[in-house]
Amino acid sequence: MNGRPLPPSRDLRLVHVDARERQSIVSLRAGGPSFGGEELAICAGPCAVESREQIVATAAAVARAGANVLRGGAYKPRTSPYSFQGLGRDGLAMMREAADLFGLAVVTEVLDPRDAEVVAGSADMLQIGARNMQNTALLRAVGETGKPVLLKRGLAATVDEWLLAAEYIALTGNERIVLCERGIRSFDPSTRNLLDLSVVPLLARRTHLPTIVDPSHGTGIAALVAPMGLAAIAAGAAGIMVEVHPDPPSAVSDGMQSLTFAEFESFMESIPALATALGRRLPQRYVARTPNASPPS
Amino acid sequence: MNGRPLPPSRDLRLVHVDARERQSIVSLRAGGPSFGGEELAICAGPCAVESREQIVATAAAVARAGANVLRGGAYKPRTSPYSFQGLGRDGLAMMREAADLFGLAVVTEVLDPRDAEVVAGSADMLQIGARNMQNTALLRAVGETGKPVLLKRGLAATVDEWLLAAEYIALTGNERIVLCERGIRSFDPSTRNLLDLSVVPLLARRTHLPTIVDPSHGTGIAALVAPMGLAAIAAGAAGIMVEVHPDPPSAVSDGMQSLTFAEFESFMESIPALATALGRRLPQRYVARTPNASPPS
Amino acid sequence: MNGRPLPPSRDLRLVHVDARERQSIVSLRAGGPSFGGEELAICAGPCAVESREQIVATAAAVARAGANVLRGGAYKPRTSPYSFQGLGRDGLAMMREAADLFGLAVVTEVLDPRDAEVVAGSADMLQIGARNMQNTALLRAVGETGKPVLLKRGLAATVDEWLLAAEYIALTGNERIVLCERGIRSFDPSTRNLLDLSVVPLLARRTHLPTIVDPSHGTGIAALVAPMGLAAIAAGAAGIMVEVHPDPPSAVSDGMQSLTFAEFESFMESIPALATALGRRLPQRYVARTPNASPPS
Amino acid sequence: MNGRPLPPSRDLRLVHVDARERQSIVSLRAGGPSFGGEELAICAGPCAVESREQIVATAAAVARAGANVLRGGAYKPRTSPYSFQGLGRDGLAMMREAADLFGLAVVTEVLDPRDAEVVAGSADMLQIGARNMQNTALLRAVGETGKPVLLKRGLAATVDEWLLAAEYIALTGNERIVLCERGIRSFDPSTRNLLDLSVVPLLARRTHLPTIVDPSHGTGIAALVAPMGLAAIAAGAAGIMVEVHPDPPSAVSDGMQSLTFAEFESFMESIPALATALGRRLPQRYVARTPNASPPS
Repeated sequence: MNGRPLPPSRDLRLVHVDARERQSIVSLRAGGPSFGGEELAICAGPCAVESREQIVATAAAVARAGANVLRGGAYKPRTSPYSFQGLGRDGLAMMREAADLFGLAVVTEVLDPRDAEVVAGSADMLQIGARNMQNTALLRAVGETGKPVLLKRGLAATVDEWLLAAEYIALTGNERIVLCERGIRSFDPSTRNLLDLSVVPLLARRTHLPTIVDPSHGTGIAALVAPMGLAAIAAGAAGIMVEVHPDPPSAVSDGMQSLTFAEFESFMESIPALATALGRRLPQRYVARTPNASPPS
Repeated sequence: MNGRPLPPSRDLRLVHVDARERQSIVSLRAGGPSFGGEELAICAGPCAVESREQIVATAAAVARAGANVLRGGAYKPRTSPYSFQGLGRDGLAMMREAADLFGLAVVTEVLDPRDAEVVAGSADMLQIGARNMQNTALLRAVGETGKPVLLKRGLAATVDEWLLAAEYIALTGNERIVLCERGIRSFDPSTRNLLDLSVVPLLARRTHLPTIVDPSHGTGIAALVAPMGLAAIAAGAAGIMVEVHPDPPSAVSDGMQSLTFAEFESFMESIPALATALGRRLPQRYVARTPNASPPS
Repeated sequence: MNGRPLPPSRDLRLVHVDARERQSIVSLRAGGPSFGGEELAICAGPCAVESREQIVATAAAVARAGANVLRGGAYKPRTSPYSFQGLGRDGLAMMREAADLFGLAVVTEVLDPRDAEVVAGSADMLQIGARNMQNTALLRAVGETGKPVLLKRGLAATVDEWLLAAEYIALTGNERIVLCERGIRSFDPSTRNLLDLSVVPLLARRTHLPTIVDPSHGTGIAALVAPMGLAAIAAGAAGIMVEVHPDPPSAVSDGMQSLTFAEFESFMESIPALATALGRRLPQRYVARTPNASPPS
Repeated sequence: MNGRPLPPSRDLRLVHVDARERQSIVSLRAGGPSFGGEELAICAGPCAVESREQIVATAAAVARAGANVLRGGAYKPRTSPYSFQGLGRDGLAMMREAADLFGLAVVTEVLDPRDAEVVAGSADMLQIGARNMQNTALLRAVGETGKPVLLKRGLAATVDEWLLAAEYIALTGNERIVLCERGIRSFDPSTRNLLDLSVVPLLARRTHLPTIVDPSHGTGIAALVAPMGLAAIAAGAAGIMVEVHPDPPSAVSDGMQSLTFAEFESFMESIPALATALGRRLPQRYVARTPNASPPS
């Protein structure tokens, strides 16, 4: 009765699964991280860029553990105007430097259409956050930069609404879009959000765009990140996005859901056996150009 | 257990109920519509401005029935990029003209921070729609125009998140903010959204800002608009916002929830008895400066 | 898109609005409380019967204030097995005595089909609680007693599912069913449940059965009970159900949402003006057979 | 803010993770299926027992593919009273016979406390369905049979409420309880329910009871069953429950979500590689006592 699934919207055109002969692979740069192929994309980093030291140390740790994309917020969408709003352009520069030191790509969020070009000048992939999934001015501005876009699912967005938001971006001529499930609103306060992994196989039947999963925001509890990350890969996700912080209890935001370096490394070590069983693999590890490379002090 | 209500956020400062000695009254202009006093604010009009004829006819009808604010979208936030996106600046001008003909104030939505000044130049009140409730760039841009702001509740926003969005606006120095409950996401497809009237008395205990209710979006069904409008007033709302269209079946959007002119008039006639019982009253009706005033052909 | 309301289930037969020529009026006894006519039904009392003193004092207070049905739980459906489970048969007898002293009818919940006959021997109306809305064994057992049934909406029940639960009862040959909206599950912890008043006018278009509203469970906050009770009446409810307790802070359950005697009396005094404006009225007050009647000590 | 997870209820005593030294293993019979150890439990079968032929053929197919528990409903909890309500005692006998032919255990639902003993006389494990998760009379009656209990999560139950329902059963002295996540209510009609896999690792930190996952009800879409079943195992589930039917389009209920025999076999073949990577394994396949054993005609 209530459960009869609805047919998808007829307005899904460019992003519709039938619009292409095969599932899309979105690459951030030649030979670099890609989303949608055999290789998983592993995005990791702090919720917010807090300082040069913090982002360089984190980049070093996540690269060493096998991540290939550095995540981190320079412009932060905060519920309260009194919460830390991010370091802005300084944060962008710090991320870029840290990522380059360890061969990582950069994904970071844009909050204002007037910032899209600036962020595109620094990052490899622009993120539309959950709160802005239907901010059409931002969708267009980010699409028009031509950079790959990571489109997070809105807190109360249906799959159709999410795909139609992707269609807004695609209409700018930019179809390098990756979807990111990060949990939706539910009635149970046991977890911060409700991670909806069923969208992973569902989207694979509705769109040619790849989907990754963010178990950090999706659960809000560090202890659940690794098992739900593995579950996401088993469900067919193109990659994962994980919050990692040098010292989670001191993080300015999202400390409860951030992994320590050791926890992230341990999680990464659990992936290869599972990935192999599923015909997938981790990205090749970054090899420093000089064996003793370390972050400059 | 699950039901233990949480204490409100400590970051509610400017908009907190204790920040002022009494509940605020937000006036759109001297002697004009106000929100929060004994007089109800009645905002009515089409979902979207479709043509000069449509908006003038609707303005005439709602003014005659007793509304004092004309609502209508010139910039439309649509789920699909292929849906009608609004007439933009032309729509703004048509609304202004139609409103002036019948002594109405104008409230209309802003979607892009770059449009805030233009819309403020034409409208009496700027609306932040549900999809943009946490679009912080837009909240700031709209607040900075100095114009009164109508802040709709997000589809999955808690009361605290909603008030913190108002706090973003208030921090620009503009505290002329009216909240608008318009229904939230729920599991029951019987109605388009779930109209949460309990926020009306709850907000009165948490903030000094006035709250109005939109039973059109809140239910999505024309037959439910009048009873839920009356219920909103009984719950203590400062006013209502209702979609009215000359010919709902032909509306480019939201036809199912729009009232005809006759339905709106009938609804308005049912309000005074109820309002009087509650110590409230409808706005004074607009009296045309010349008895035979009618919209120019 | 997501908001297109679904057509009602075709399996709504006996309870369908078209199954009768007019809306049903459910009377508890000759000349006694009825649901669905011009007169409102006012059900009031404690969450649980705790003692003879407590229930007699409450019955006296709610009768004096104008209620005509005494509510109270003898068998309590508690989330935790360690919470107070009710006084059972003793509680039933206490309620009956207290109600009779002040001319009230009795409504009380049944939890086990094996208890239906016993409860029917004592109460005037049997309640199916939210947790048991789809307990088909209980629906049938309660229906078969022939007593009027108060069917509360399940915590996550759609309108169709609720009406189909009523259809289960009606199929026993007992169509004296009253629906009770008591709030559903939502994501916002600001209130205990989300009171969905839009079902009141919606149900009036789908079923001939009357609907009442329980703003106590529906909000979980005593201060919201009166405004939401008025809103329910404005939306067209056939009556209300309100928790009242001699000393809410000491109540064994639901103290936060219970009104004191004075709060209930004040709320009841606010109803007549509103009811008159809507063509409704409170029940006639009980007049003690002897002017000095008081509960026996 | 809203996302701060709550501490678990203090009333979780018998089922609390700290109540035992290690996670419980619930065995249905000596050497038979068990939940919670290295070996996965695979429960498969039709939504409803429809005929002897149907249940025997399905038992043969699921046993051959590697399942060790036969699921199927003899008493069906249907939303509409006009839907098929199950074959009752005849259905129980058919299931028992079919299961015995192929060395399977039987799990089936109980709807009425008065049926608990009869069902316990025939089945190896008694199921409490989602609609009855807080039917305390049923929880007690089923617990008192002493048989292992499969407790499905209610459609809108928090993790705490679910565990407190398990506590009701445990208080009868029967702690052989297995939890089953089967999807909860959400706003997105893309899937029938929202499968909440995060409860799998969360419950492992809150209770010593094992948890299985039902991706058939959890998604309502046959194509999503296999990927979500794999994801459940990756998240740490003790087993899965899957609907399988000889001819899904002709099933009297839940055809859209049922796998064919070939689909189920294919799904089962995908499990061992994943299970091995996680240190888990499928149950040993049933070996017919005589090589040519086949269901009697």
